[in-house]
Amino acid sequence: MTEEQALKYLQDTLFVVGGKWKLPILRAIHSGNYRFRDIQRSMPLITTRVLSKELKHLEENKLVIRTVYQSPLAVEYKVSHYMHSLLPVIKEMILWGKNHRKKISEE
Amino acid sequence: MTEEQALKYLQDTLFVVGGKWKLPILRAIHSGNYRFRDIQRSMPLITTRVLSKELKHLEENKLVIRTVYQSPLAVEYKVSHYMHSLLPVIKEMILWGKNHRKKISEE
Repeated sequence: MTEEQALKYLQDTLFVVGGKWKLPILRAIHSGNYRFRDIQRSMPLITTRVLSKELKHLEENKLVIRTVYQSPLAVEYKVSHYMHSLLPVIKEMILWGKNHRKKISEE
Repeated sequence: MTEEQALKYLQDTLFVVGGKWKLPILRAIHSGNYRFRDIQRSMPLITTRVLSKELKHLEENKLVIRTVYQSPLAVEYKVSHYMHSLLPVIKEMILWGKNHRKKISEE
């Protein structure tokens, strides 16, 4: 793998999970908020437009599954099985973030 | 660790390494571009203002060390030893990004 390729893969990952809202949205769904308004209610600062855009993005990247029920008509979002493939990245990021806070507050 | 704390640490890490330019800047410095104009020359699309802002941010987060030499007057940027603590995160992100490309292009 060239440095160029490695950088591209890194930026792909950042593109998929980066930004202010994606991880909080995944967490909201994972905690049982499957409907749009429930997700939105659990994240008071997010606008409808941004939530729609981010859900679409998460769906395109296979991290979230959108299901439409006919009667009664309802749309639900669930975290995909594929999302579990992100857990090693998330684990390392949590670990690093925790140590980084200590490092920055020490000095 | 509560879910709230974990999310905060995650967002800290994304805040430090996220965005379009930080990782390419670190890579440019790591490849031997220690002066501002060398970094900028190796990244044609970045503006002076953005490069200054991102270098300051990387310095505040201890990933880059800025050294001022007196005579002749010169400023150099080097990747800090602390930067190596990010390697596990970067490794996992490269791995995930590589597999994600395959996953998305398969379907």
